[in-house]
Amino acid sequence: MTTDRMRIGIAGINGRVGRLLREEVAAAGATLAGGTSRDPHADRSEGLFATLGDLAPLCDAVIDFTHAVTVRAHAAALAKSGVAWVLGTTGLSDIDQEAVATAARTIPVVQAANYSPGVTLVTRLARQMAEVLPAAVYDAEILEMHHRQKVDAPSGTALAIGQAVADGRGIDLSSHMESGRTGHTGPRQADAIGFASLRGGQIVGEHTLTFTSASEQIALTHRAFDRRVFAAGAVRAALWLRGRPPGLYTMEDVLGLR
Amino acid sequence: MTTDRMRIGIAGINGRVGRLLREEVAAAGATLAGGTSRDPHADRSEGLFATLGDLAPLCDAVIDFTHAVTVRAHAAALAKSGVAWVLGTTGLSDIDQEAVATAARTIPVVQAANYSPGVTLVTRLARQMAEVLPAAVYDAEILEMHHRQKVDAPSGTALAIGQAVADGRGIDLSSHMESGRTGHTGPRQADAIGFASLRGGQIVGEHTLTFTSASEQIALTHRAFDRRVFAAGAVRAALWLRGRPPGLYTMEDVLGLR
Amino acid sequence: MTTDRMRIGIAGINGRVGRLLREEVAAAGATLAGGTSRDPHADRSEGLFATLGDLAPLCDAVIDFTHAVTVRAHAAALAKSGVAWVLGTTGLSDIDQEAVATAARTIPVVQAANYSPGVTLVTRLARQMAEVLPAAVYDAEILEMHHRQKVDAPSGTALAIGQAVADGRGIDLSSHMESGRTGHTGPRQADAIGFASLRGGQIVGEHTLTFTSASEQIALTHRAFDRRVFAAGAVRAALWLRGRPPGLYTMEDVLGLR
Amino acid sequence: MTTDRMRIGIAGINGRVGRLLREEVAAAGATLAGGTSRDPHADRSEGLFATLGDLAPLCDAVIDFTHAVTVRAHAAALAKSGVAWVLGTTGLSDIDQEAVATAARTIPVVQAANYSPGVTLVTRLARQMAEVLPAAVYDAEILEMHHRQKVDAPSGTALAIGQAVADGRGIDLSSHMESGRTGHTGPRQADAIGFASLRGGQIVGEHTLTFTSASEQIALTHRAFDRRVFAAGAVRAALWLRGRPPGLYTMEDVLGLR
Repeated sequence: MTTDRMRIGIAGINGRVGRLLREEVAAAGATLAGGTSRDPHADRSEGLFATLGDLAPLCDAVIDFTHAVTVRAHAAALAKSGVAWVLGTTGLSDIDQEAVATAARTIPVVQAANYSPGVTLVTRLARQMAEVLPAAVYDAEILEMHHRQKVDAPSGTALAIGQAVADGRGIDLSSHMESGRTGHTGPRQADAIGFASLRGGQIVGEHTLTFTSASEQIALTHRAFDRRVFAAGAVRAALWLRGRPPGLYTMEDVLGLR
Repeated sequence: MTTDRMRIGIAGINGRVGRLLREEVAAAGATLAGGTSRDPHADRSEGLFATLGDLAPLCDAVIDFTHAVTVRAHAAALAKSGVAWVLGTTGLSDIDQEAVATAARTIPVVQAANYSPGVTLVTRLARQMAEVLPAAVYDAEILEMHHRQKVDAPSGTALAIGQAVADGRGIDLSSHMESGRTGHTGPRQADAIGFASLRGGQIVGEHTLTFTSASEQIALTHRAFDRRVFAAGAVRAALWLRGRPPGLYTMEDVLGLR
Repeated sequence: MTTDRMRIGIAGINGRVGRLLREEVAAAGATLAGGTSRDPHADRSEGLFATLGDLAPLCDAVIDFTHAVTVRAHAAALAKSGVAWVLGTTGLSDIDQEAVATAARTIPVVQAANYSPGVTLVTRLARQMAEVLPAAVYDAEILEMHHRQKVDAPSGTALAIGQAVADGRGIDLSSHMESGRTGHTGPRQADAIGFASLRGGQIVGEHTLTFTSASEQIALTHRAFDRRVFAAGAVRAALWLRGRPPGLYTMEDVLGLR
Repeated sequence: MTTDRMRIGIAGINGRVGRLLREEVAAAGATLAGGTSRDPHADRSEGLFATLGDLAPLCDAVIDFTHAVTVRAHAAALAKSGVAWVLGTTGLSDIDQEAVATAARTIPVVQAANYSPGVTLVTRLARQMAEVLPAAVYDAEILEMHHRQKVDAPSGTALAIGQAVADGRGIDLSSHMESGRTGHTGPRQADAIGFASLRGGQIVGEHTLTFTSASEQIALTHRAFDRRVFAAGAVRAALWLRGRPPGLYTMEDVLGLR
């Protein structure tokens, strides 16, 4: 890192997230080193590269919200060039995840499913709440609402919050999930973690975790007003990586929550 | 009706709802004329009867939250004695419903799925909202939360609110329902009415109807704090029936919402 | 009105609301006839005029979210030219309001404090709810949240909702308002209409009206995601005015709520 | 402590809280050692005493939700008898608080403004959230709703949550409070902690803390369904005190949150 301003590259710079990242890199006062694009006509003179291998040598860090199929190639390219990695790609296989872990022995990596500071905090608090509020007394339920175009349910962030509750209780999420209730469901299982999904308008993302006993309820809600919050969080993670030793970090580390 | 105080009978007086009704009859300053009980050892000297046929002649009105199987016998007994009927039994077949309509040519009947004034109002407002907010712009979603023992989803009241939305839009509910979203759901249908269910603690019943567009959201919420509100509404309906001509009325009529 | 497309003028076209109105006029397929600007260097060749008197003859309707001091001059100018008026200016004196009423004997006028369809509906429903839910049993409270820059409380829309509740109850708002509770307040008055204000972030506007009894609560919430919803409503009002007879109309009329 | 079952005394046993405490002591399987009552005709044979000095020798612990004027006498009596103290009395002066601290050098004392496990957790989480979410970006606001009889605002619990936010930010609460907004308030101060109060029905207590930035909102809500939750928490604190060394503890200690 030879310049004063950090040089940040963006994988998938012309995608929806890529464009927001570009604006947030500028807003943070960092230098945009360039980006990758799958477009075969991408113009190198504008800082566009076909592969991360070509872009990496120009960067101090690369922010990557692309596709699981690219993860192994990206891991190798960034480790080879000694460039820090902010990884937001989801849907990774065990083999993909192993490649990330291998790269993290050479370079510093932040990996998170959601880069919003608020969601990171909510997930952390969810685990704490679950440690303190016994499953026999407090029923944990997670509600999420997203825009009408969303094609899956529950949202990845809802599942991450559910995983945090399961971690706090020392149980396995998949065997305790109650999702998609309709028709004759039978009574709620005592240690279940329930999920429900609403869809409508252009809601960026709202999540509420409730713990309900016979005599009280504690609820934790996150509302994202603007998709920009995710891009800003990723840029914050990139800046935080400057000068870090190799390792696999989370947004909780970036925010100083550990 | 020969006394000043209205004489009210309670079908199923020893059930959970029956006990609350008994208290609300007293609180309203009406006379408890007696009740029916399926218990073979029920003591007539305490105003307990095996059948509504025996109880009816002592009453000005009977409140009935029992079972669909009794509806036809009750309809006949009350019509024969000329006694007003407050009917909260649900799950009626077409034949049962026909028996109610027949009785209502002889006696005044209030029939409702939910006797809370608040839910009656919410259902009425839901229809109005749906008339004004076009389905192409405003996505309608219904969320309900109930206690952990509840065995079906969505709740009957959620379905009644959904029916009101469908009525307001002039569409059929069953072919527009999206309930139990989980896994790969695909995008929301433009004119869908969505349902989601949470379970926890001893929540008596919470319902929220939202209409969400790209630029605004209108939400209507009902929370019942106490099961008593349903019993109080049924007694209010009984008092309202005094001196009414025969006919099939709803809680909207009782509350003067039409 | 000699053209197919309605010709709409915008008073205060270079203000924050004016710019949104310009976009919404275009989005609605209407013709932007021009606007007024207080800027002395405003360029007539770009359709900018110093006074509404100059602009009016080019318009079928004028949308006016400016200042109370201009209302009497605008009323006279529009009545003289026979141009419809969409008036969103607030803080009018009795004399100003009289000028509006006088103009409405010559031209059609829509006047509203809030042009969002959702808020119009909420205000209408608030009146109905207040008619049905007796003040002795149901406590009415209004909560609003707005961005951190807002300098007054409660919001004008919260007051309009409160006025609707007072109208529904047949009482006077000013003598029943409880606003700014802090310190030793004493118990809530039985027929009070309570107000509370939160401030934070860049919240465009959230309002919740609750009716709470000992046994249930009904809540009606409006959330504006985008200031654009107010501009779109004003343009909708302008289009609705086309061909209307003179008169003083409200957004309820525009939305067909009466 | 010579018996297997803990012996618990209740100061003010015939008050509203006292009656709930009596039931919770029984529910917890502890022994009710007796209580104090200001009634001059209180019957010693029923375990009623005029002063805590008489009751204390019969107890392992005393639960005390009475009045600030009694605190110094109670501190002296319990320290003298070596009896543990669960103190929920609020409105203490500095001198009262000094007396509590002095007693805590001899006996174990739990002192809290709110004994609900949920509120204790919420207060703890509030401090953590405030540590992580910078005041320059996230506006902290606290909303509370209580029954119509409540005579002061904001609630003591709202103030405790506000104090936790102030602690997390390392600032003084009293000089950063914005409470009772009404009229011309001016814009929100950047590091303010805002409070708003709703009143209605028989709401036991609802509190919501929100942190709102331009792009996201995190909200933490507590709802008490039943006053019983406070009594149950106090009895839990009494049981936890058994065998503890002298010291001044909080409900966070009882719940293992530190």
